[in-house]
Amino acid sequence: MTTASATALVLDLAGTFAFALNGALTAVRAARLDIVGVITLGMITALGGGILRDVLLGALPPSTFSDWRYLVVAAVGGLVAFGLSRQLERLATPITVFDALGLSLFAVTGAGKALALGAGVGQSILLGAITAVGGGTIRDVLVRRIPTVLRSELYAIPALVGAAIVVVPARFGLGGLVWALVGAGVCLAIRLLGVRFRLEAPHPPGGKSDGDAPAS
Amino acid sequence: MTTASATALVLDLAGTFAFALNGALTAVRAARLDIVGVITLGMITALGGGILRDVLLGALPPSTFSDWRYLVVAAVGGLVAFGLSRQLERLATPITVFDALGLSLFAVTGAGKALALGAGVGQSILLGAITAVGGGTIRDVLVRRIPTVLRSELYAIPALVGAAIVVVPARFGLGGLVWALVGAGVCLAIRLLGVRFRLEAPHPPGGKSDGDAPAS
Amino acid sequence: MTTASATALVLDLAGTFAFALNGALTAVRAARLDIVGVITLGMITALGGGILRDVLLGALPPSTFSDWRYLVVAAVGGLVAFGLSRQLERLATPITVFDALGLSLFAVTGAGKALALGAGVGQSILLGAITAVGGGTIRDVLVRRIPTVLRSELYAIPALVGAAIVVVPARFGLGGLVWALVGAGVCLAIRLLGVRFRLEAPHPPGGKSDGDAPAS
Repeated sequence: MTTASATALVLDLAGTFAFALNGALTAVRAARLDIVGVITLGMITALGGGILRDVLLGALPPSTFSDWRYLVVAAVGGLVAFGLSRQLERLATPITVFDALGLSLFAVTGAGKALALGAGVGQSILLGAITAVGGGTIRDVLVRRIPTVLRSELYAIPALVGAAIVVVPARFGLGGLVWALVGAGVCLAIRLLGVRFRLEAPHPPGGKSDGDAPAS
Repeated sequence: MTTASATALVLDLAGTFAFALNGALTAVRAARLDIVGVITLGMITALGGGILRDVLLGALPPSTFSDWRYLVVAAVGGLVAFGLSRQLERLATPITVFDALGLSLFAVTGAGKALALGAGVGQSILLGAITAVGGGTIRDVLVRRIPTVLRSELYAIPALVGAAIVVVPARFGLGGLVWALVGAGVCLAIRLLGVRFRLEAPHPPGGKSDGDAPAS
Repeated sequence: MTTASATALVLDLAGTFAFALNGALTAVRAARLDIVGVITLGMITALGGGILRDVLLGALPPSTFSDWRYLVVAAVGGLVAFGLSRQLERLATPITVFDALGLSLFAVTGAGKALALGAGVGQSILLGAITAVGGGTIRDVLVRRIPTVLRSELYAIPALVGAAIVVVPARFGLGGLVWALVGAGVCLAIRLLGVRFRLEAPHPPGGKSDGDAPAS
């Protein structure tokens, strides 16, 4: 394994762990599920984005299933979150932070994998964003929430920005770890600032999102 | 590119545009999303059916991702709908008509692609219908509605009829544009008549659908 | 066709039929859909798990679409359930029993197919469970329920146990019908006992699932 691919693997597993914590805590907090539901939702949140990416790239079976490390990291993340849920449940912040970390790491690793498999610039940026938002979208559908990617102020946009920061330099031969870290950092910063200050993208004239309201 | 494949591409892109308008207007009207949510839902509605079809055919990566024209048309459709939402939102009709147009075009192009990739008669008809109803089904799940394909009077049936009008003549060597246009026209007519006169398929004895009611 | 593969096919088609009955009855009872919705939901429930499995194995097109017998059995199951819905609707038990039967049969056939295509022990057990719970999960999402796999006492666990009873002996060269029947029987027994006595997996300290409540 080269240094580059080892680094990509570490970032990808870190994103997997962050999303597993997020999904499992969401199961505890939002849907009050039992241990099987908690670990299942943690794993689906952690692995869903990468599976979507690999299906869209035609890279099947998904790396999740050909590389057992993803399964183990996702399951351990779900177990850890279950064990710590009493401590973490009172705090809304960890759920948001783990989600933002997973979003940022998957945006850059997803885009990097798409590039490595020969996708074009635009497709790689989009696939990075799909990897980043995919697991959380499946999570939200399963617990009957309108997905964050549809209703949140800044969620798809930082993922697209983070992916572009990896893809565009690579196009000019400037690949490597530094751009991945910059991309993830910028994505994380935009996302957390968006949450903190509730920055919002423009709404259609006359209408304003009320976030959690059910569609009629 | 042959004339036949150019025609198929034009019909497919027209269906993509119609579904992007429909999905984006649904995002404005039903879920009151911001611009990112509007364009995202428009693109998912426009591209979802073709992705499902290509996964089920094993034709990966989906044409959506290997051919950037689909991505561009879907994004432009979402943007146009966002810009026109003030004008169009007061009217319920455009959402329904764009949905029926996308349904009709995707039924015939989806069936044609399945045939071209060697699927049998029955499978090609079913894949045409899946292409036609797939994007709208994902749209409805994401905004928490019971999918139209499950609760609507006439939605899957016109799609199956439209697909059959393409597939059966092709089986006897009578392929071509004319059957695609006839199939799309018949599908569109049945669908719009169904909406207009609220024609319904039979219900089980004693039960009657109440449409939008949540499942218990 | 060998005896082994013929047996696997029979068990797989039996699971398909059971899930088609379950999905169609769910459509009648929970969502009060018309005939198109009933048959559609029956077919999606019956075919969804196998499609997920084949996507994750990269075995595309899914056997559902390359082998018309699955489509026919799923459609007939939906039609039968529609016809018998007046008789069966008063009884809650059939829906649960058909679901448990499908779960048990798909756990062993899904795991067996994963093994046959070269997946490892852990992956095969997981893919067996995904095949078993996949169709019902899509069913629940479409009728807007939190999926059984997330909120039920014992649903994923018996599927994992049933799959392991097939996979582990096969690893030691002890393949064959007897383990498949034992695995399915054990899965079915655990599931039905779980439903009967409402056995539950541990909850996080201080929280208790309220099952059907919407996520907030």
